[in-house]
Amino acid sequence: MSAEIVNPTDGLDDDVIDPAFALHRGGKMAVRATVPVRDADDLSLAYTPGVAKVCSAIAEQPELVHDYTWTSQVVAVVTDGSAVLGLGDIGPAASLPVMEGKAILFKQFGGVDAVPLALDCREVDELVETVARLAPSFGGINLEDISAPRCFEIEQRLKERLDIPVFHDDQHGTAIVTLAALRNAARLRGRQLGALRAVISGAGAAGVAIARILVEAGIGDVAVCDRKGVVSEDRGDLTPVKRELAGFTNKAGRTGSLESAMTGADVFIGVSGGTVADEAVAGMAPDPFVFAMANPNPEVHPDVAARTASVVATGRSDYPNQINNVLAFPGVFAGALQVRATEITEGMKLAAAEALAAVVADELDADRVIPSPFDERVAPAVTSAVAAAARAEGVARR
Amino acid sequence: MSAEIVNPTDGLDDDVIDPAFALHRGGKMAVRATVPVRDADDLSLAYTPGVAKVCSAIAEQPELVHDYTWTSQVVAVVTDGSAVLGLGDIGPAASLPVMEGKAILFKQFGGVDAVPLALDCREVDELVETVARLAPSFGGINLEDISAPRCFEIEQRLKERLDIPVFHDDQHGTAIVTLAALRNAARLRGRQLGALRAVISGAGAAGVAIARILVEAGIGDVAVCDRKGVVSEDRGDLTPVKRELAGFTNKAGRTGSLESAMTGADVFIGVSGGTVADEAVAGMAPDPFVFAMANPNPEVHPDVAARTASVVATGRSDYPNQINNVLAFPGVFAGALQVRATEITEGMKLAAAEALAAVVADELDADRVIPSPFDERVAPAVTSAVAAAARAEGVARR
Repeated sequence: MSAEIVNPTDGLDDDVIDPAFALHRGGKMAVRATVPVRDADDLSLAYTPGVAKVCSAIAEQPELVHDYTWTSQVVAVVTDGSAVLGLGDIGPAASLPVMEGKAILFKQFGGVDAVPLALDCREVDELVETVARLAPSFGGINLEDISAPRCFEIEQRLKERLDIPVFHDDQHGTAIVTLAALRNAARLRGRQLGALRAVISGAGAAGVAIARILVEAGIGDVAVCDRKGVVSEDRGDLTPVKRELAGFTNKAGRTGSLESAMTGADVFIGVSGGTVADEAVAGMAPDPFVFAMANPNPEVHPDVAARTASVVATGRSDYPNQINNVLAFPGVFAGALQVRATEITEGMKLAAAEALAAVVADELDADRVIPSPFDERVAPAVTSAVAAAARAEGVARR
Repeated sequence: MSAEIVNPTDGLDDDVIDPAFALHRGGKMAVRATVPVRDADDLSLAYTPGVAKVCSAIAEQPELVHDYTWTSQVVAVVTDGSAVLGLGDIGPAASLPVMEGKAILFKQFGGVDAVPLALDCREVDELVETVARLAPSFGGINLEDISAPRCFEIEQRLKERLDIPVFHDDQHGTAIVTLAALRNAARLRGRQLGALRAVISGAGAAGVAIARILVEAGIGDVAVCDRKGVVSEDRGDLTPVKRELAGFTNKAGRTGSLESAMTGADVFIGVSGGTVADEAVAGMAPDPFVFAMANPNPEVHPDVAARTASVVATGRSDYPNQINNVLAFPGVFAGALQVRATEITEGMKLAAAEALAAVVADELDADRVIPSPFDERVAPAVTSAVAAAARAEGVARR
């Protein structure tokens, strides 16, 4: 399979040239009826006149919508196409293959129905308003591939406004899986989380969310670097999101470059798409953990990282320890929907990470700090943990 | 099955009390993947990295979205819950059982995927804007149960703005099936359409659309009555929609009550939900056609109508000649999507009505001027006719 983009002007021939095009022809999903509509009796129950009674009951008692429609088991996969994979701002239509892919992963891995919705609007106000108007039809909102820093405000405002889970997967899915891998790396090497110093390269959606979950999980020190170096409170060029980030990270008050921050660090987490010099990795503390997650080109080549690191993880499927969001989002939503959670709390995310890590806790190896995406134990484990955490945190409706 | 609304406070017991509730538990639909996601190779084609090539191709050549996503085979079933069945303004959540029902009828009868979207907004501007923002994810928009006169402006503005079919089924679905039944009634009784004088009771969504299609089909004279009588150009109380209606109907310049308009008329079409005196029916021309379509209570009881009428139709499944929209909308959209039509033109609607009528043209009987909703010849016939008409009218993209 060629790694290059096939010339789309070849039209139909794309299918012959590339199996990805062949697979995508006609799309990747469909809907189906789950009740029979074979005869007039069926129709009179599933549609008029029978349906009218169900509508009236919901009008009188709104929470019945969860019992008598598919609403509470379906998630909207929402994007504006502004930050799609590594492709950037390709717009709503071109993002649809990713959203459809996400929708079928929800179904296959979590048993959660999902509908791809690529919205033709860009202003934060417009996106928030549009998703809020759509909300009655869905049990949850999965935000996807929306560019930073807009994604932070959009998610925050929707969380405040809606009483269903709103989850920006590029942030929290990545953060949950990263924390799970880090937990298991520490377990494998007999390290305490509180004794670890981590450096994150990248202060976008993933970097900010990873920093937050690592701090919440008790990692000793977490510093985040953007292109200008460590995000620290003394910098005058910070956006509001980075100012907040500086407030809850970088306990040691470091300043300066990524490379200087990495000197002596125990953990490197790359979510920047940039590259890191081999020497910077070599200058880390002994037996560090290197999670170089940029895709398709990790910040540090995994073979180089392996020279010094005691655990290496990437975003790639062709190396061990793939940090893949599919390990998190299906179970997170399945658990939240199962108990009709009103939101996905930090505690539910931490519980997801712990449950995910626990799946392989008895099989740990340097090449196995995180389960395979196809490990069938993952989704049920995450689902149960998230549902239980929702109950414990008082956000479950049943 | 009780005809009364079950007390929703009975909760779970509803399922036991009423089969409609039992059938609706958990909703009526689901999504499914149409491609395999069993292993890493599958995932690398359906999702990253394979999907990126498909996204890039669409970004370069936007029309490829039709080939490589499900977009051009999926219809949004959109409502604001403002005019749901005969229940009125019950809001978006309570309307969802109807929208889900509609979605599964699209699938079962037309093979068209459909997604129920009940929107939490009411202003015409907001509805138009929201649907326009959603449009990149869909091949067509089916508007449903939106109150008049807002529905007219919303449909018109969306048609102007979008390059995909926008179709308000309460208007045009009903109009297509009504015309088909009238064509066959005339054929059965050897009457010419141009010699028929029709009176429509009801100037809402269905009445306006039926009037338009009957005029387009060449019915001799069509008068529409609202609660104040014939909608005529001399009235000073007309809304813009009714003023337009008065302009293209009522050739004879009638004024006065519904009953007076019915005197000597050949066709009565009821879409008002009101009642019509038995005497008014008795005063129609000899052997009239009476289509009393209000549901569940026809304007004229079909047994009463049968005393004078030579053909009787209703909206009910328990009497012959049911004017049921499901005879039209699945095939209309299937045909439009098949050729990627940019809109659904008047010619396509007329073609749908003709094709629908033709299905039973060789089997005509007073109790069989329209096929059963379960006649499997219907959807293919309507689909082909609509696709051919789209090509003939120059709105097909393939």
